[in-house]
Amino acid sequence: MVEKRKPIKVEEALKRVLQYAKNGSTEYVSIEESYGRFLGEDLVATHDVPFFDRSPYDGYAIRSVDTVSASRNNPIEFKVVGEIGAGSVFEGVVGENEAVRIMTGAQIPEGADCVIMLELVTESGEQTIQIKRQVKQGENISFIGEDTKKGTVLASKGTYINPGVVALLATFGYKQVPVSAKPKIGIIATGSELLEVDQPLEPGKIRNSNTYMIMAQIERAGGEPIYFGQFKDDLRTCYEQVKNTLEHVDFLITTGGVSVGDYDYLPAIYEMLGAEVLFNKIAMRPGSVTTIAVKDGKLLFGLSGNPSACYVGCELFVKPILRTFLHNQNPVLKRTQAILGQDFPKANPFDRFVRGYVTFDGSQLLVHPVGLDKSNVVSSLAGANVLLVLPGGTRGFSKGMKVDVLLLEDQEGAPVDTFLAGFEKLNRGDSDEVI
Amino acid sequence: MVEKRKPIKVEEALKRVLQYAKNGSTEYVSIEESYGRFLGEDLVATHDVPFFDRSPYDGYAIRSVDTVSASRNNPIEFKVVGEIGAGSVFEGVVGENEAVRIMTGAQIPEGADCVIMLELVTESGEQTIQIKRQVKQGENISFIGEDTKKGTVLASKGTYINPGVVALLATFGYKQVPVSAKPKIGIIATGSELLEVDQPLEPGKIRNSNTYMIMAQIERAGGEPIYFGQFKDDLRTCYEQVKNTLEHVDFLITTGGVSVGDYDYLPAIYEMLGAEVLFNKIAMRPGSVTTIAVKDGKLLFGLSGNPSACYVGCELFVKPILRTFLHNQNPVLKRTQAILGQDFPKANPFDRFVRGYVTFDGSQLLVHPVGLDKSNVVSSLAGANVLLVLPGGTRGFSKGMKVDVLLLEDQEGAPVDTFLAGFEKLNRGDSDEVI
Repeated sequence: MVEKRKPIKVEEALKRVLQYAKNGSTEYVSIEESYGRFLGEDLVATHDVPFFDRSPYDGYAIRSVDTVSASRNNPIEFKVVGEIGAGSVFEGVVGENEAVRIMTGAQIPEGADCVIMLELVTESGEQTIQIKRQVKQGENISFIGEDTKKGTVLASKGTYINPGVVALLATFGYKQVPVSAKPKIGIIATGSELLEVDQPLEPGKIRNSNTYMIMAQIERAGGEPIYFGQFKDDLRTCYEQVKNTLEHVDFLITTGGVSVGDYDYLPAIYEMLGAEVLFNKIAMRPGSVTTIAVKDGKLLFGLSGNPSACYVGCELFVKPILRTFLHNQNPVLKRTQAILGQDFPKANPFDRFVRGYVTFDGSQLLVHPVGLDKSNVVSSLAGANVLLVLPGGTRGFSKGMKVDVLLLEDQEGAPVDTFLAGFEKLNRGDSDEVI
Repeated sequence: MVEKRKPIKVEEALKRVLQYAKNGSTEYVSIEESYGRFLGEDLVATHDVPFFDRSPYDGYAIRSVDTVSASRNNPIEFKVVGEIGAGSVFEGVVGENEAVRIMTGAQIPEGADCVIMLELVTESGEQTIQIKRQVKQGENISFIGEDTKKGTVLASKGTYINPGVVALLATFGYKQVPVSAKPKIGIIATGSELLEVDQPLEPGKIRNSNTYMIMAQIERAGGEPIYFGQFKDDLRTCYEQVKNTLEHVDFLITTGGVSVGDYDYLPAIYEMLGAEVLFNKIAMRPGSVTTIAVKDGKLLFGLSGNPSACYVGCELFVKPILRTFLHNQNPVLKRTQAILGQDFPKANPFDRFVRGYVTFDGSQLLVHPVGLDKSNVVSSLAGANVLLVLPGGTRGFSKGMKVDVLLLEDQEGAPVDTFLAGFEKLNRGDSDEVI
């Protein structure tokens, strides 16, 4: 009755899944809707910045040659022949001992080759100023292309669009912004103990919280979650439901039903679909029963029905596939280290992902596990901002030790290679058998 | 012509603005739309968790008294009288030497007072099992309310709704979620040099990037930006525009027009409105001309037209007001320290907010300034994830020194008090006059 499963390491599981990662398409949205999306094409400077020689200060545009002999004891008088407000241009040419009042950002007028700041000038008459110092050629001019050259790639395809990127898009005229299309991710909940959110509780039942949690995780990662409801009871109906849903989505997530219990249909459904099961057991907790299969190139994520396991499975395996779909080059959780703020005496036969909360202590990261890492402890997920990575085969950790943490709310992510290397480097013990 | 302005310290400016901070209203959205919003009421456990005594494992529910004499050498036989799948209940009462097969999460049947795990049991016949160890009363039972007691506040009003909070909302039956209404924040751009995003460039002009950047900053902070277009040229029209817009928004942001130049109408408009100017000069860079006024309790944020100054002004002054409107208790940017990764030799007569990029070096935060902190350097904003806080009156900073940083992409924020204290503690020099 109990099927024997062979557990694989977390990094091996991720490698197998990533073989089926693919990029999605690109679509256009207005710049007002672009925040929080991912660039569907490289963001290229469509012109030099500055686009024209401009003044970085309020002041007077003059010819440097006219200031050569200027000094405190030898003030030179200039005739103010015009004024350039921001956005306007001076039509004439600045001649000998002539000055044009210029505002910050305005174009340097023809003839002038430097700017003297307003504060350094004395008004000596209605239309005259005095200058008491030499100004060099090019002084106080921001030259064409000085900031950015036309054609420069300023943010590459797949970059998360933050407010600074939006500013760049506006600067370079992207009224319509090419963004990565969001993957449509179907969700089916399984479990005869599940009630919908608006159903009253009854003995033996719990409300379906995993679906809504995963929907939020998918949104956070940049995808479009679509909830297809709960499984009906018989196997044939379940199979049809999975098969039909799969046609309408880019990936499918199921929650629950992947254990080896009598009521868990998913292994049978994978077989009926003719889907290839990439693995059905991972040497990790929570989430050891996480099962991932592939059917005609589409991934089916079988996440555990346990909320913590479901959460971890989604972050570790769904997110990288989702972010790759968005063309993002850093599709996995960013990993760093933190000082453990309290003892964690539990032995770890397997790699363990413990919900934690990171704070800052000076320039150091400090992490505390949040709640207990028991089954169904939903309440501690709300307060977690990291997952601690505690390697398998270890006998517990003491306050003050450095541990690896994965950042949950970070939007930058990390490249796959460094993430995998992080797992391969883990100082695991020898108890991998003890699954 | 040039108005003399009296600069105040950053913390003093923030204190003045916060006097006008107010909470917004609460509205309801479906749980599917709740991710990324802020709780409009405390999230309360509407029932105990577990809601019934349940089994944390697959196994058999039995009476502990029947195992008192069980041992390896004295296996006790139990008759399997039923089976409880997840979601179903056992109708009978477990009697002497009877066992009921129970699935993870299922309700403990009447009569039973402990559970033995599946792995520790030997099937000895069609409907019989053998138990070779004593099981204690209460062993392997998750008791009613063990995880969470009914009535517990699990997340307070104003909390950012992350996926873990969504899971809690679902668990406790919040099909409709009370969320803080988003403040409507109007934006008006000023500056005759501004082109709209879809207009072709021309000499002397630049495209309006600040508006779109601020819209994204407002969205990131949780507000609803509304762009009301660019100022028309004459003062009377501008005044009417500000006056009318103010009636339709919770706060109003203007960009540009707050300097002391000839073309900057805002000081005049504040006067015409009868608005109280809280300050019009701050001892900081960029953004020294940031001006904030209040009219009938509504704040008018006059941000600089310089993109960096505009960005900083929005994060330092608009965000705390916005987050307070959302009932959030941590409305200001989270502040920590980081090791400076390179020299920053520039002297700081005033507090300086430098765009930076933080990385992790082991469990340490390391920060590098991004680009130069010049006017109009838009490109570096896209790559920044922090603002370095470099106190005024200092002569530059060396690699390896600890500096304060404000986290831009963090959603947790910090309480006002600690933020203000952070500024008050700054090791400033004596050059406050040098504005």
